[in-house]
Amino acid sequence: MKIARFNGGRIGLVEGDEIADLTEAEGIDPASWPPVGMVRFIARHAARPADIARLAEGAPRLRLGDVRLDCPIDWPNKVVAMPANYTAHIEEQKTSKVGLISAFPASAQGFFVKANSSLSGPADPIVLPPLDGREIHHECELAIIIGKGGRSIPRAEALDHVFGYACLIDVVVRGKEERVMRKSYDTFCPLGPTIVTADEIADPFDIDLELTVNGEVRQQANTRDMLVDIPAMIEMASAVMTLYPGDVFASGTPAGVGPIRAGDVVVSSAAGVGRLTLDVVRGENGAHPVWNKAA
Amino acid sequence: MKIARFNGGRIGLVEGDEIADLTEAEGIDPASWPPVGMVRFIARHAARPADIARLAEGAPRLRLGDVRLDCPIDWPNKVVAMPANYTAHIEEQKTSKVGLISAFPASAQGFFVKANSSLSGPADPIVLPPLDGREIHHECELAIIIGKGGRSIPRAEALDHVFGYACLIDVVVRGKEERVMRKSYDTFCPLGPTIVTADEIADPFDIDLELTVNGEVRQQANTRDMLVDIPAMIEMASAVMTLYPGDVFASGTPAGVGPIRAGDVVVSSAAGVGRLTLDVVRGENGAHPVWNKAA
Repeated sequence: MKIARFNGGRIGLVEGDEIADLTEAEGIDPASWPPVGMVRFIARHAARPADIARLAEGAPRLRLGDVRLDCPIDWPNKVVAMPANYTAHIEEQKTSKVGLISAFPASAQGFFVKANSSLSGPADPIVLPPLDGREIHHECELAIIIGKGGRSIPRAEALDHVFGYACLIDVVVRGKEERVMRKSYDTFCPLGPTIVTADEIADPFDIDLELTVNGEVRQQANTRDMLVDIPAMIEMASAVMTLYPGDVFASGTPAGVGPIRAGDVVVSSAAGVGRLTLDVVRGENGAHPVWNKAA
Repeated sequence: MKIARFNGGRIGLVEGDEIADLTEAEGIDPASWPPVGMVRFIARHAARPADIARLAEGAPRLRLGDVRLDCPIDWPNKVVAMPANYTAHIEEQKTSKVGLISAFPASAQGFFVKANSSLSGPADPIVLPPLDGREIHHECELAIIIGKGGRSIPRAEALDHVFGYACLIDVVVRGKEERVMRKSYDTFCPLGPTIVTADEIADPFDIDLELTVNGEVRQQANTRDMLVDIPAMIEMASAVMTLYPGDVFASGTPAGVGPIRAGDVVVSSAAGVGRLTLDVVRGENGAHPVWNKAA
């Protein structure tokens, strides 16, 4: 199943070129703030996601082309991110001239978190801050969405805690400042276009990822090459923190990261999961003296 | 005013040794999950916090000693943290043998975020993971709670966006791993005991902070010695990210950080804001091979 947020916080099930609107059936108020409707939806259905299909049976239907897809999860408990999780990316970072941060692999380094406010959706452009002299890079990643929460989840049970998958781009300003700040600008965590439930993915250890910029392939990888694989990242993070339904994992980027500029079109896809097609624009906000030094 | 969360998500106003229960008057369902009642409460009252006093007039009252205080904000959009924000702490870190991380000051380094799930309340112990050979340190901090949200907030308007203040302890495993992971164990961000509204603090640039362990003074400082002061941290963070009502700033620690151990009692206080008195215990959870190397 493909679960979507759309038209300002409504929740629906995408079926072909239609979307079944589950908002009323689920008793969700799309105008409620903060926007935790999808987190609540995932918590409610984590134990038996197959029930979602039944909800859609009598639901009103819209044409998918007539709705605006929102970021599927706007306000999770946290966005956990795995640095340096593919060997080839670690190697390219060792020779990078724009901020060596990630040469210490995720298996030894652990994880960080991105600010929730960096999340954006499949219809939102990536808005670059006006930081002259800085490179801003795309990082193509698979997102893992937690269903059933927990603490100290063993590897053998980890996949039982996965609700679904999505595409994610981890956008970053290169430099020596705190990585979290460099990765937490608004729109620096596009997620979507929908959440594909775990039952649709035959083998999460074999998902092809690809990112193009203006049609040119920049990143191509497969999840089999992760250093810390999906069960291992759930085990590591839940050793430290309680995971909650709706938590998002950004699973780390493969080699091929590079700059994006205003006017670019970035396409990030994961086989069987979906495709984000995003415009890159230059925003007015985001300059600050903290950036006024060489990268 | 002192705004509290208590007895599992109820919201009240502390007046002397009583608490006026605003839960019904505000239409808050304490059992609702995720627990965003306080975030919604702050958003509703950020423009005119003085109205909160009126709500309390007809509210049912309980004896403060009969309630259990919860973490005032369990599920904000984010917990923003300022590293290396007092010169004397930067100097002590330069000579530390347990992980030099913070010698680059906050004014140049920027901020990071702690996982929301690390937040805990004034009645919750600090639970240390069983990481043999690692030091786990207390960091005494003032918390700033955002009221009115915004992006690109100029320094001159920054204090208008402050809803209130609280005590906060930033607990950290020393070492070379990702700082965010080292600071994001469950209970590593005690907050409270209440939120003191901004109108009660005559001068946020002159707040005495103190932290003791088993009665021995370990940290003493004043907010006037911050490198990035409160308006500056709001300006910096909001240059990067939209701030939302209920966002928490951990404003950085002064000198005197040191280890805590099971059996310790930690008292962290901020003049005019309050005092957290917390037991330290050893938990069962939290070991993982990522920690199995020298600090």
